[in-house]
Amino acid sequence: MSHTQVTLDHKRHSLSHLLAQAVVDMFPEAKLAIGPTIDNGFYYDFELPRTLIPEDLPILEKKMKHLIRQNQKFEGHVEPCDQAIQFFHKINQPYKAELVADLKAKGETEVSFYKNGPFLDLCRGGHVEATSQIDENSFKLDRIAGAYWRGDETRPMLQRIYGLAFENRAELDQYLELRKEAERRDHRKLGRELDLFSFSENVGPGLPLWHPKGTVLIEELEKLAKEEEFKAGYVRVRTPHLTKGKLYELSGHLEHYKASMFPPMKLDGEEESYYMKPMNCPHHHMIYSATPKSYRDLPLRLAEYGTCYRFEDSGALFGLMRVRSMQMNDAHMYCTEEQFEQEFIGVTEMYLKYFKLFGIEKYVMRLSLHDPKELGKKYIDEPELWKHTEEMVRRAMKKAKVNTVEVPNEAAFYGPKIDIEVFSSIGREFTLATNQVDFAVPKRMNLVYTDENGQEKNPLIIHRAPLGTHERFIGFLIEHFGGAFPTWLAPVQAVIIPVAEAHEQYGKEVQRKLFEAGIRVELYASNESLGKRVRHGETQKVPYMLVLGDKEVEADSVCVRSHKSKDQKTVKFSHFLKSIVEEIQERKLNV
Amino acid sequence: MSHTQVTLDHKRHSLSHLLAQAVVDMFPEAKLAIGPTIDNGFYYDFELPRTLIPEDLPILEKKMKHLIRQNQKFEGHVEPCDQAIQFFHKINQPYKAELVADLKAKGETEVSFYKNGPFLDLCRGGHVEATSQIDENSFKLDRIAGAYWRGDETRPMLQRIYGLAFENRAELDQYLELRKEAERRDHRKLGRELDLFSFSENVGPGLPLWHPKGTVLIEELEKLAKEEEFKAGYVRVRTPHLTKGKLYELSGHLEHYKASMFPPMKLDGEEESYYMKPMNCPHHHMIYSATPKSYRDLPLRLAEYGTCYRFEDSGALFGLMRVRSMQMNDAHMYCTEEQFEQEFIGVTEMYLKYFKLFGIEKYVMRLSLHDPKELGKKYIDEPELWKHTEEMVRRAMKKAKVNTVEVPNEAAFYGPKIDIEVFSSIGREFTLATNQVDFAVPKRMNLVYTDENGQEKNPLIIHRAPLGTHERFIGFLIEHFGGAFPTWLAPVQAVIIPVAEAHEQYGKEVQRKLFEAGIRVELYASNESLGKRVRHGETQKVPYMLVLGDKEVEADSVCVRSHKSKDQKTVKFSHFLKSIVEEIQERKLNV
Repeated sequence: MSHTQVTLDHKRHSLSHLLAQAVVDMFPEAKLAIGPTIDNGFYYDFELPRTLIPEDLPILEKKMKHLIRQNQKFEGHVEPCDQAIQFFHKINQPYKAELVADLKAKGETEVSFYKNGPFLDLCRGGHVEATSQIDENSFKLDRIAGAYWRGDETRPMLQRIYGLAFENRAELDQYLELRKEAERRDHRKLGRELDLFSFSENVGPGLPLWHPKGTVLIEELEKLAKEEEFKAGYVRVRTPHLTKGKLYELSGHLEHYKASMFPPMKLDGEEESYYMKPMNCPHHHMIYSATPKSYRDLPLRLAEYGTCYRFEDSGALFGLMRVRSMQMNDAHMYCTEEQFEQEFIGVTEMYLKYFKLFGIEKYVMRLSLHDPKELGKKYIDEPELWKHTEEMVRRAMKKAKVNTVEVPNEAAFYGPKIDIEVFSSIGREFTLATNQVDFAVPKRMNLVYTDENGQEKNPLIIHRAPLGTHERFIGFLIEHFGGAFPTWLAPVQAVIIPVAEAHEQYGKEVQRKLFEAGIRVELYASNESLGKRVRHGETQKVPYMLVLGDKEVEADSVCVRSHKSKDQKTVKFSHFLKSIVEEIQERKLNV
Repeated sequence: MSHTQVTLDHKRHSLSHLLAQAVVDMFPEAKLAIGPTIDNGFYYDFELPRTLIPEDLPILEKKMKHLIRQNQKFEGHVEPCDQAIQFFHKINQPYKAELVADLKAKGETEVSFYKNGPFLDLCRGGHVEATSQIDENSFKLDRIAGAYWRGDETRPMLQRIYGLAFENRAELDQYLELRKEAERRDHRKLGRELDLFSFSENVGPGLPLWHPKGTVLIEELEKLAKEEEFKAGYVRVRTPHLTKGKLYELSGHLEHYKASMFPPMKLDGEEESYYMKPMNCPHHHMIYSATPKSYRDLPLRLAEYGTCYRFEDSGALFGLMRVRSMQMNDAHMYCTEEQFEQEFIGVTEMYLKYFKLFGIEKYVMRLSLHDPKELGKKYIDEPELWKHTEEMVRRAMKKAKVNTVEVPNEAAFYGPKIDIEVFSSIGREFTLATNQVDFAVPKRMNLVYTDENGQEKNPLIIHRAPLGTHERFIGFLIEHFGGAFPTWLAPVQAVIIPVAEAHEQYGKEVQRKLFEAGIRVELYASNESLGKRVRHGETQKVPYMLVLGDKEVEADSVCVRSHKSKDQKTVKFSHFLKSIVEEIQERKLNV
C-alpha cells in the first residue's frame, strides 16, 4: 500500500481504533461494540462502568495523541469464526462475539482482526499503515450520546463517543467554524428569536403556525411570484384542499402515492371518501378540462398558491425542512410539443432570475432520467416517449446554456425532471425545486385540445415550483441570510429610536410617513435605555435603525444605522425615505 | 271586518281557494291537499286524473278571473271533527280527512270551514270578505311542480300549482321584471358564461374550482383587504387547514360545532384524530398564546386569508351561496376593555368603507343579543358579562352613528354580535358579514396578557369578517353588478380589437403597453368579423373595448367603447392609459 492511497476515511477509521484503545486504557473493563466512520469523522459505542462526562473527552483525546506519536502500525490477520467467538467470550467482549456469530450465521467462515500496538479489534480493514500518517491536530472528540446496541430499544443502552476528523487542523477548524455559524443560523433557533413561527402541541407536529413576522416572509415571496408570473403570462387559479377519492383514482395518486397522503374522510350521505390534496396537479387538470380547449388557448399556465398536505412519519419531521403542511408557489403549463422548448427554457430562466435575486451563487441542476429496466414498473411503459422527452429536455437545457448533471433512474413516473440543489451562503446544500415534464397523465386523465386541423391531441404538461415549498425555502433563506433578510423581505424594515421622550413626537411623525409609504416600521419608545433598544434592533436584525436626537429633530433628518454595513450616518429624512422605497421596490440584495 | 284590514296575505289565501275551485271545475274528481300562502303568492297541491301541462295554467287563470268577477263572499263556520272527517270521506277527499284526523289527534274538537260561492274548503281563515277586493290582474299562475303529500317520499306524489299574487298589476309586473333580471344576473349562470368557476364531479359538491377569471375576483378582494388592513394596523398570520382534535376540545368547537365539521382523520402512529378547521379562531388563539403578551402588545389584530371547511348536507349546497370550502378575510382583535370601543368602531367603519366602495347603498345591521332564559344552555352562563358586553356594543354602535336593529336570542355562544345584511342593486337581500364579541373563549383557552400592574388578565376578542366568505360575497357581487364589474375588479379590463390584419401590429403594441402597466388585457385577433368580436367583448362585459383602425394607427389613438356608458370616443392612447390606471388605482365604482 503506498502513501498516496491513504484516504481520509482510512484516517477516520484508524482514529476510531485509537479511541477504543484509549477507552480500554481508561476503563479496562470496557465492552466494545462498533466503531464506523461517518461523514465528518467517526464514532465508537461502548458499555462502560460509569457514565461518561464531557471532561473525559480531553483526557481521551490526549491519550489518542500519545498513541499517534507512538507511530503504531496496523496489521491484519484472519481467524476462523468459531475461534474468534471463543476468543471474545474469553476476554469478556460479548458484543464482538455476537457480531462474529452473526457473520457466521450469514455464511462467513473467517473474520479479520487488526492490531495496532497492543490493541486488537475485529475489523474489515481500511486503515493507515501507521499512525504517523495521521496529523494529531486534525481530530477532536466531539460529544457523548446514548445509543441502543444495534439500534434496538430492547437491547442495552451503550455510550457513544463522536469524533470529528479531517486532513489537518486547518480543515478541522474550518469545519468547526462552519458548524458554529450553521448553529447561529439554525432556522429553528432564529425562527424563535425573530418570532417567525411556532409549532403547537394542540395543533400537531409538522403543522407550522406562521406568526406575523414569518407571514411577512411568505407573503412577500407570494407577491414576488405573482408579479413575475403575471409578467411571464401565467394566470392564477384556486382550488380546494380536498377532493373525492375519484380524482386520485383518475390521476394515479391513490395507486402511486397513498402512503404519503393523509387518511380518507368519510362524509355522511356520500359513498366516496375525501382526501386532503398532497399535490395541486389533479385539481388544475380539472380546471383545464372544465371547458373545451383549442390550440389557441395554449400555452396555458395555471399558477396557484396552494397548500398541500402530506403524511410524514412524526419521527421524520424537522423544523420547516420536513413538515406536513406545505405552501407552494405551484404552476402547470399545458403546451403543444412545438411550444415545449420555449416554455421549459422560460421556466429555467425564472429559476435563474430568482437565484440572482436571493444571492444564490451556487446551484446544481440534475436531469433525472428513467431507467429502461424499470419501464412498466416504476415508470410509465412508453419507451419511445421517454427517449423523445428526455432528448427534448436535454436540448432545452442546452439552449438555455445551463449545465446539468444527468442522473439515471430518478425521474417521476410520468416523465423526466430537473431537480435543483442550491447552496446557502455558508455552503450547505438544500434540494429546493423541481421542473418536471409530464407526457403520461394528460392521456390518462383525457386532457385534450383541438389542433389547427380539428384533431384532438394531448398537451404536454410542465410541473414547476421554482421556490419549492415555502416552508423549506424560508428555512433555507433563514440560514442563507442568517436571519438578516434583505430590506424588501424583512419582517420589520426600519425601527425608530427616539433618544429621549422629547424626540418621541418627531419619531411618531417619521413613523407615520414611513408607514404611509407602506414600510413595515416599529417605534421603540424611550422608556428603555438607548443601548438596550439599539441592541434589541440589532438582535432582531432590522435593516435600518433610525436614531433620533436633538440634531435630527432640528434638521428634519435621521441618523441611519445599517444592520448590514454597521455604518451610521445622518441624512435628511426625505432622502432616507426615497432610498428605502427604491431599495424595496427593486428588491435589492445589497445596499 | 273593515276593508282597511284586508292584507295581501288575505288576498293570496283567497286566491288559493279560487285556484282549488277552478281546478275542481276542470277536474271534478280532483283530490285536494293543502293551499298555503308563500312570500310571493300561494300554491295548492292536488291529486289529479292526469299530469298538468303548462297550457292548463292560462285556462285555470281565466276561470279564476271569472270567479273573482262573481264577487263571491267568503263565509266561515265550524263543525265537530268527527263530522268533518265523515264528510270528507263521503265526498272522497282523503287528504282533507287525514288533516282533520290529525287535528283531532292533537286535541282539537272542532275545525273551521270556509265557503266561497259553491266551494267549500277546510280552512283556518284569513280571507278577503268578497272577491271584489282582489284585483283580477294582480295574480298569475306561475308554474307546476311535483310535491310529496306531507313532504314524505313514501306518500303519494301530488301536483302543485304555484301562483304569484300582489296588490295590483303594476306590482306583479315589477316582481316579474325583477325576477327576470335576477335570472339574468344569476351567479351560477354568469359564473359559467364569464368562465369564473365550476364544480367537478371528481372533486365533489360544494367545492368550487376557481378558474383564472374568477380567481382574479378573489385575489383583487384579497389585495384590497390586505391594503386596508395594513393601513388599519393589522398584522397577518397563516395557519394550517387542520388540527388535532385537542384544540377543538379546548375551544369548545367539538362540543358546540361538531355536526358542521368534516369527519376526523386518524393518522398512523398518533392517538388523537385530526380535523379540518371550520373556523380560524382557535388557530389564531394558539398564535396569540405562543409568546407572552403584555398590555403593550394590545390591541393585536391578527388577520388571515384562511380557507375553512364546513360540512353542509349535499342537498343544502347552492352555487357559491352554500359551499363546503370557504375562503375568508378573517381577523381577530385581542384588546383590553378600554380599547374595545375604539376597535369595535374601527371595524364598523371598515364595513361602511367597503360598502361604499362596492356601491352597496342599502344594508341593515342587526345586534344579536342573548336570551337570559338560555344562559348555561345556548349561552355561556355569565349574566353580568352578557349585560355589560351588550351595553358596550350598543354604545360603540351609537358612537359610530350606525342604526342597529336589536334581535334577542341570536348571539354567538361566547358573546353578542352584529350581523350585517346587504341588498344588491336589484334589491335582493344577502347576509354577508358578522362582527362578534367574545368574552368567554379567552378565559376558557387561558389567553392572557400582563397589565400595567403586572396582573394577568384575559383580553376581549373581536371576531370580524367584513367581506364574509369570499364565495358568498362574490356570488353577491356577480348579481349586484350583473357581471359587469368595476374596472379594478374585472377579470379582463380591456380588449383590443384591430379592425383588420393591417392594424394588428399596432394592436400588439397597445397590448404590450397596457400589459406592462399591469392591466389585464386581451387581444381579439382579426381572423373573425369585427361585429362578432365586439359582441363577444360585450357579452364578456369587458369594461373597455379598444377598436383600432387606420385613423387610430395614424394618430396613436384608440377608439374606446365603454361597457358601462356604451359611449364610444377616440382619444390618444397615452390619455386612455393614464385614465384607466387611475381608475384602477382608485378603485372607482363609476366612470
